[in-house]
Amino acid sequence: MNQDTQLFKRWQQVRARSLAIAETLSAEDCQAQSMPEASPVKWHLAHTTWFFETFILETLEPGFKPFHPAFRMLFNSYYDAVGEKQVRAQRGLLTRPSLEQVIAYRHDVDARLQALWQQQTSTPWADLLELGLQHEQQHQELMLSDIKHLFSCNPLLPGLFVTALPEPHWASPFTWQSYQASLLEIGHSGKNFCFDNEIPRHRQFVEGFEIATRLVNNGEYLAFIEAGGYQNPALWLAEGWDSIKSEQVRHPLYWHLHGPQWQEFGLHGLQDLDLHKPVCHLSYFEAAAYAHWAGARLATEAEWEYAAQQAKPPQQLFDHCWQWTSSSYAPYPGYQIPAGAIGEYNGKFMVNQYVLRGSSALTPAHHTRATYRNFFPATTRWQMSGIRLARSLSAEQPEEA
Amino acid sequence: MNQDTQLFKRWQQVRARSLAIAETLSAEDCQAQSMPEASPVKWHLAHTTWFFETFILETLEPGFKPFHPAFRMLFNSYYDAVGEKQVRAQRGLLTRPSLEQVIAYRHDVDARLQALWQQQTSTPWADLLELGLQHEQQHQELMLSDIKHLFSCNPLLPGLFVTALPEPHWASPFTWQSYQASLLEIGHSGKNFCFDNEIPRHRQFVEGFEIATRLVNNGEYLAFIEAGGYQNPALWLAEGWDSIKSEQVRHPLYWHLHGPQWQEFGLHGLQDLDLHKPVCHLSYFEAAAYAHWAGARLATEAEWEYAAQQAKPPQQLFDHCWQWTSSSYAPYPGYQIPAGAIGEYNGKFMVNQYVLRGSSALTPAHHTRATYRNFFPATTRWQMSGIRLARSLSAEQPEEA
Amino acid sequence: MNQDTQLFKRWQQVRARSLAIAETLSAEDCQAQSMPEASPVKWHLAHTTWFFETFILETLEPGFKPFHPAFRMLFNSYYDAVGEKQVRAQRGLLTRPSLEQVIAYRHDVDARLQALWQQQTSTPWADLLELGLQHEQQHQELMLSDIKHLFSCNPLLPGLFVTALPEPHWASPFTWQSYQASLLEIGHSGKNFCFDNEIPRHRQFVEGFEIATRLVNNGEYLAFIEAGGYQNPALWLAEGWDSIKSEQVRHPLYWHLHGPQWQEFGLHGLQDLDLHKPVCHLSYFEAAAYAHWAGARLATEAEWEYAAQQAKPPQQLFDHCWQWTSSSYAPYPGYQIPAGAIGEYNGKFMVNQYVLRGSSALTPAHHTRATYRNFFPATTRWQMSGIRLARSLSAEQPEEA
Amino acid sequence: MNQDTQLFKRWQQVRARSLAIAETLSAEDCQAQSMPEASPVKWHLAHTTWFFETFILETLEPGFKPFHPAFRMLFNSYYDAVGEKQVRAQRGLLTRPSLEQVIAYRHDVDARLQALWQQQTSTPWADLLELGLQHEQQHQELMLSDIKHLFSCNPLLPGLFVTALPEPHWASPFTWQSYQASLLEIGHSGKNFCFDNEIPRHRQFVEGFEIATRLVNNGEYLAFIEAGGYQNPALWLAEGWDSIKSEQVRHPLYWHLHGPQWQEFGLHGLQDLDLHKPVCHLSYFEAAAYAHWAGARLATEAEWEYAAQQAKPPQQLFDHCWQWTSSSYAPYPGYQIPAGAIGEYNGKFMVNQYVLRGSSALTPAHHTRATYRNFFPATTRWQMSGIRLARSLSAEQPEEA
Repeated sequence: MNQDTQLFKRWQQVRARSLAIAETLSAEDCQAQSMPEASPVKWHLAHTTWFFETFILETLEPGFKPFHPAFRMLFNSYYDAVGEKQVRAQRGLLTRPSLEQVIAYRHDVDARLQALWQQQTSTPWADLLELGLQHEQQHQELMLSDIKHLFSCNPLLPGLFVTALPEPHWASPFTWQSYQASLLEIGHSGKNFCFDNEIPRHRQFVEGFEIATRLVNNGEYLAFIEAGGYQNPALWLAEGWDSIKSEQVRHPLYWHLHGPQWQEFGLHGLQDLDLHKPVCHLSYFEAAAYAHWAGARLATEAEWEYAAQQAKPPQQLFDHCWQWTSSSYAPYPGYQIPAGAIGEYNGKFMVNQYVLRGSSALTPAHHTRATYRNFFPATTRWQMSGIRLARSLSAEQPEEA
Repeated sequence: MNQDTQLFKRWQQVRARSLAIAETLSAEDCQAQSMPEASPVKWHLAHTTWFFETFILETLEPGFKPFHPAFRMLFNSYYDAVGEKQVRAQRGLLTRPSLEQVIAYRHDVDARLQALWQQQTSTPWADLLELGLQHEQQHQELMLSDIKHLFSCNPLLPGLFVTALPEPHWASPFTWQSYQASLLEIGHSGKNFCFDNEIPRHRQFVEGFEIATRLVNNGEYLAFIEAGGYQNPALWLAEGWDSIKSEQVRHPLYWHLHGPQWQEFGLHGLQDLDLHKPVCHLSYFEAAAYAHWAGARLATEAEWEYAAQQAKPPQQLFDHCWQWTSSSYAPYPGYQIPAGAIGEYNGKFMVNQYVLRGSSALTPAHHTRATYRNFFPATTRWQMSGIRLARSLSAEQPEEA
Repeated sequence: MNQDTQLFKRWQQVRARSLAIAETLSAEDCQAQSMPEASPVKWHLAHTTWFFETFILETLEPGFKPFHPAFRMLFNSYYDAVGEKQVRAQRGLLTRPSLEQVIAYRHDVDARLQALWQQQTSTPWADLLELGLQHEQQHQELMLSDIKHLFSCNPLLPGLFVTALPEPHWASPFTWQSYQASLLEIGHSGKNFCFDNEIPRHRQFVEGFEIATRLVNNGEYLAFIEAGGYQNPALWLAEGWDSIKSEQVRHPLYWHLHGPQWQEFGLHGLQDLDLHKPVCHLSYFEAAAYAHWAGARLATEAEWEYAAQQAKPPQQLFDHCWQWTSSSYAPYPGYQIPAGAIGEYNGKFMVNQYVLRGSSALTPAHHTRATYRNFFPATTRWQMSGIRLARSLSAEQPEEA
Repeated sequence: MNQDTQLFKRWQQVRARSLAIAETLSAEDCQAQSMPEASPVKWHLAHTTWFFETFILETLEPGFKPFHPAFRMLFNSYYDAVGEKQVRAQRGLLTRPSLEQVIAYRHDVDARLQALWQQQTSTPWADLLELGLQHEQQHQELMLSDIKHLFSCNPLLPGLFVTALPEPHWASPFTWQSYQASLLEIGHSGKNFCFDNEIPRHRQFVEGFEIATRLVNNGEYLAFIEAGGYQNPALWLAEGWDSIKSEQVRHPLYWHLHGPQWQEFGLHGLQDLDLHKPVCHLSYFEAAAYAHWAGARLATEAEWEYAAQQAKPPQQLFDHCWQWTSSSYAPYPGYQIPAGAIGEYNGKFMVNQYVLRGSSALTPAHHTRATYRNFFPATTRWQMSGIRLARSLSAEQPEEA
C-alpha cells in the first residue's frame, strides 16, 4: 500500500468518525449553538466538508459545480479570502439545510473527491487532503467540547455517552523532574504532517527548570478552593481577578456542589468528583492562580517541548487534558504565512491567546505531537484545559557583572 | 350541545391547530431561537401545554403527578409565583426534551384533561380552560411570527407556506371618517371571554377626531422612504431617531432591495412588494414618524375602539396587521390584578409598552375583539404591526377662559 | 411698571440666580459630569446662555456675531435643527472654555440682550425671552440634582449647603380625600406662560377616586423595605423587577445604612433619616411597587390635576418632591408641535417616559403650576421624585349591559 | 555629594517637575478624565504622593498620621493589599479634594519625607524613594498622554504647549542593520535602579535578524493608508481587523484630514503632518499590519535589546516614540514577585499585553534604559507608540534532520 493509498484510507476513516460522533445525537442536538465561541455539530459537519469542496474541488475538479451555491458562504468559518461568511454567533439559526441535507453534502463531496483521486495518477493535492483531514480532526474535538457545553446549559444535564466511564488511572504521586539549562531545537522537523505554526524548527535557550510529572488533580485543586483561592486577589493576574469577579467564577466550569458532595458534569452526565483525576475546564487565569498558590508557575511551551523530547518524558503528557503554558501564541522565528486563503488558517490568530500543549481525552487518536500548538484566549474554559506545574531552578541564573 | 361541550370542542380544535402549524417544520426548525424576544416553536408547543398542566391538572387532578418534574421549570415563561424558570434567551438551548417528547407531553396532558373533564359533572375550571385556550391562540400567532423571524435570519430565506398567496384585496381609496367628541364606554362587557386587561368597562371622553378608513400601504410608505423620511430627525421621536441610527434601520424589517425592485420576505418566501398591501413590521417609532410626515398622528386606543363600536366601522379593522396606537399600555380605571399566579398574565407588563389594536393575518380565527389590547415595546418590529392614521378635529377644542 | 419691564426684571433675577447657585462651587465642581444623564454645572450655565444667543440674538440682533463660533455646537443640547452637538456623555470633557470664560459668555449675551431690549420699543420676542427664562429655571433644578448626584459619587460625601436644614413640617396624618367621577377640563388656559405640552386645554372624563392628602414618608417606605418589598416580585412591574435585580437596588438612591441607623445624603451632606419627611429619589418602579404593597396605586395625571383644581387641594401639592403619576408622557388631544427648532423642546420626548406632577424643594420659586408636566424615564432616581397614593372608588364603575 | 544626597536631589527635581507639568493647566483641565484608561492630572499628582505616604511614611514615620484618612482609598490605583480603591473609571468625579488641596498634600508629604530623611542617618528606605521617584516619572509621561487625549476630545482642539515645536531631525534614510544568531544575556544587571520586570538577567538565544535603523515615518505610513491598508483583511491579525471595523479606525489616532491636507493633533495643537516624523499613536494591530504590508515584522524584545547592546545601535532607539515589539509581556525566567503590596507593581499585569521598547518624546530625561519594558494592551493608541521594522535572516534556520 503506497503512501497515497494510506492517506486516502486515513481520510476515509476520519470522515466516517465525524458522522459516528453525531450518530447518537438528534437533529435538534446538532442544531443548537450554546454560545458564540461554540458551533452547532451540524455546522461542524458541513464546515469540514466545505473545507474540501472549497480548497480542493473548486480548484481541481474539472467542470466544478458547487453542491449548493450558498454553502460557500454559509459554512465559511473565517476565510476572508474566500468571501462573505455567516455571522459566527448566528450559526445556530441555520435550521436549513437540515442535518440530513448536510449529510448528503458530505457524501457528495466525498464521492467527488474519491473520483478525482482515481482520475489523477499523481496527487498534487495530497497536502491539502492531509490538511483537511487534520482540520477535521480538530473539529472532532470541538464537536465534543461544544456538545458538552450545550448539554451543560440544559437543566436536565443529559449525558452523551452511555458507555462506561474509562477506568481511572490517575493515582500517581506528585514529583518534580528537573532539566538543565540548554540550547534546544524547538518545532517540527521531518516529512510528516504538521501545521504551519509548528515551524520553522529553530533554536531556543531554556534556563534550568523543573516540571511536574503529572497534572494537577481535582483533589489538589479542591484544596486551593477550600484555602480561599478564589477570594484572594494576591494570587491572581489583575485581568483574571476582574474576570472571576464579574463572571462570578468560584470553581472549574462544570463542577456542581450537591450538598456536601462535589460533582462534575461531562459527556457521561453528572458524576461524583474523582479527586485523582486531572482538574479540567480551567481558564488560563485559574491555572496561573493555582500555580501561584502552589509556589510554582506554568511551564513555557519551550520547557514543555524540551521535557517531551526526553527519553523519559513526564507522565500524562498526552492525557486527560491540554496544559496551559505561560507562552503567548506567537510565530516562530522565520515563520512565513502560507500563500492564499490557507494562510488564514493560523497566522492571523497569533495575538492575545495562550498556547496549550499535550492533548486531551477528546483528541482523536493519532492527532497528537510533541510539537503541537493548541491555543485559546485566557478566559477560555469550555475546552479540556488543565495544569502542569513548573518552576525555575534558581541556580541556573547567569552571573551578573 | 351545551356550553361546556362547545368549549371542549373548541379546545380540541385549538390544540390540534398548534400541531398543524408545526407540521411542515422540521425538528430543527422547531429548535432554534432567533433572538431573546422570540421563542422556539418547540418551546411554544411545550409552554402552552405547561399552562394546562400547571394551572389545571396540578390543582384539580386527583393524585397529580407531573409528566416530567423538570418541565415545571423548563417551560415556565414568566410566572414568578410558580418558581424558577429557564432563562428566556436560552430557550433555544433545550435540545432535550426532543420535539417528539414534547408532542408526547401534549398528548398526555390532553388525555388527562379529557379524563378530568369526564369525571367532573360540574366544571369549575371552565374559566381556566378557556384562558388556556386563548393563551394558546396568542402563542399560535407568536409561533408564526417567530418562525418568520428565524427564517429571515437564514441567508437562504426559506418560505414556510407552499400554498398560494391570498388574493390581494387592498386596493381601496384612502379616506377619512370623522367622529364627534363623546363620552364613551370603553372595555369589555358581557359574559364572553376577555382578558383581564380589557376590563373594567369604564367611561372615557374622546375629543372629536378623524380616522383613516384603511391602513397605510406599502406604496405610501415607500413614498415616505423616498422623501428621505429615515434621514430627517424632525419627523422622529428622539428615542426613535437614536434607535434607527444605532440599528441602521432604513426600511420595514423584511424589505429587501434587489436592484431597483423592492421585495418583502414573508412566510411565502421572498415576494415582490405589493404596493397596495398594508405596510407591516414597523416599530412604533416608524409608525409615528410616518404619521408625522403625513400630517397626521396615530389613533389612541379609545379612538380606535370608538370607531370600532360604530355601525359602520372603518375598513380593515381586523385585517392584515395590528395597528399601533399612541396609547401606552396601562391599567383601566379600577383594574384589579387577579389573585394567584394568573395575576402575572398581564398586569406586570403595564409599563413602557404601546397598545396595538385590531388583529393580523396571523391571528387565529375567532381570536379578535374590538376590545382586545395587544401590546409591545416601541422598538418591536417582528410582529405584524402597521399604521392606521388619525387626526384631531380642531373645532372640538373646549372654550378657553 | 409695564408687563415687559416686569418680564425683564424677572429675567435678570433668574439669570442672577443661576450664578448664585454656582457661587459656592469650585471650577472643578462645575466641570465634572457624573453620568450621561447629568450635565456639568458649567455646561448648564453655558447652555442656558446659548439658548438666548441662538434663539433670540442670532435672529434679531443686527449684525449678529457669535460670542464664539464653536459654542453653537458645544452647548447645543438636543436641537437637531440647529445642527451638530457635543456628544451628551462627553460634556464633562470640555475643560475649555473655562468656567470664567463661560461666565464672561453669560455677561456678554446678557448685555447684548439688554441692548436689544432697549432698542426695540415693541418686543416681538417677549415670548422667547419668557421661554428662555422658564428653560433656565428648569436647568436650575437640574444643576442642583446633578451636583447632588456628583457629590454622592465622591466617597467624601461633601455637602453643598452650609446653611441650616429647613424646619421639618411634614408630620401630618395620612388621610384620603375622595373625588366623584367627572368630566373635567385639563391643561393650561389663560395668558400666562406655559409650556407647549400643557395645551390644548381639553376635556377628560375621570372615574371616581381617592387621593392621599400627603406624600408617602420615609417611615412608611422603611416599613415597605422591612417587609421585604425589594425581595417580592409579586409587587413589581416585570421590567422594574429586572431593573432592581440587575442594578442591585435595595433602598432609595441616597440612603445609607450606618450600623442600625439609616442616613440620607443630600445637599446638606449626610443626615439621619427623618421618618416624617417625604420619601424621595425613587424610580417609577419603586413608586409603583410601594403603592401596590400599600393596597393603592399611583394617581393619573388627570386625577392629580383634578385634585389640584379644588378649592381645598390635598396637602403637599407643591412640596418636597415631584410625584410620579401612572400616566405616560403623551401629547394632549390636538397638540401641535411648534414650528422651527423650538418645536424640539418637548414633543419629541413623548414616548417611554412618565409624568411627574407638583414640584420639589429644588424647584425655583414661581416655577410651579397645577398644569405643569415634568417627565422622566421610569428608571430615573436622581431627580426629586416621590409618591402620592391614589385608589379607585369601585362604586363608580359604569353599569354593564 | 554622597549617593543618598544625589538621590534626594533627584527626588526633589522629579517632584518639582510634576507640578511644572500642571502649571499651565487650569484646575478644570486637571479634573477631567477622558476615558477609563486615562486619569485626571489631579489624580496623578495625588496618587504619586500617595505612593510615598503609603509605602514610606506609613511604615517609617514615627507617630504617622495620614494627611487625610480618606486619601488612602481615593488615590490607591490598583494595590489590593492596601485595601479599597476608587473605581478607576470614576477618578474624574473627585472634584473634592481640590487641586489646591492636592498640591498642599504634595507639600506636606514632601516636607515630612525631608524631615524623615534628615532624622535617619542611614536610609533603609532609599530603594523605596528611588522606586517612588521612578514611579512618578512614569506618571509624568501618563499625565502628558492623558491631557493630550483629553484635549483631543474637545472640539476646540486646544494645544498645551505654547513654545515652538522642536526642530525636526528625522529625515534619515531607511536602512537595515543585521545581527547574527547569538546566545545573549537579556535583562538588567548592575546596581543601578531597574523595575522588577527587567530581572533576572538571563540567557536567550536569538536567531539572526535585521532591524531597521530608524522608525517608520508618517510618509511611509500614509503610503500604507493610500494603498488600502485599512481595507485589506489579509494584512491584519483577526482581532485587529474586527477592532478597526467596530471602532471605525482608518488612520492613526490623532490624524485629521482637512480637505486634501493631513494634520496631526498634539500638545502643540493641530499641525500639518510632517512626513519625516516617526508615525505615532498606533495600536499593536496597526503596527503589525503595517509591518506585514511592508514585507517585514515587528522585532521581539530580545532582538531589540540585542541591537541596543551593540556599540553602534540603530538610530532613534530612544526617540520620538516607543516601539511595539511582538513580545507579549511575560515574566523573565526566574522572576520573583516582590513581597508585600509592592509586588503588585508589575507582576499581576503580565497577561494580554505587549511590550514596547525605547522611550518617547514625553518620557522624562534619565528615565530610559535599554532593558526598560513598557507594556500596553494591543488596542492601545493614546500612548506614544510607533513602529520599528525587523525581519528574520532566513539562512539562520537550523538544519532539519
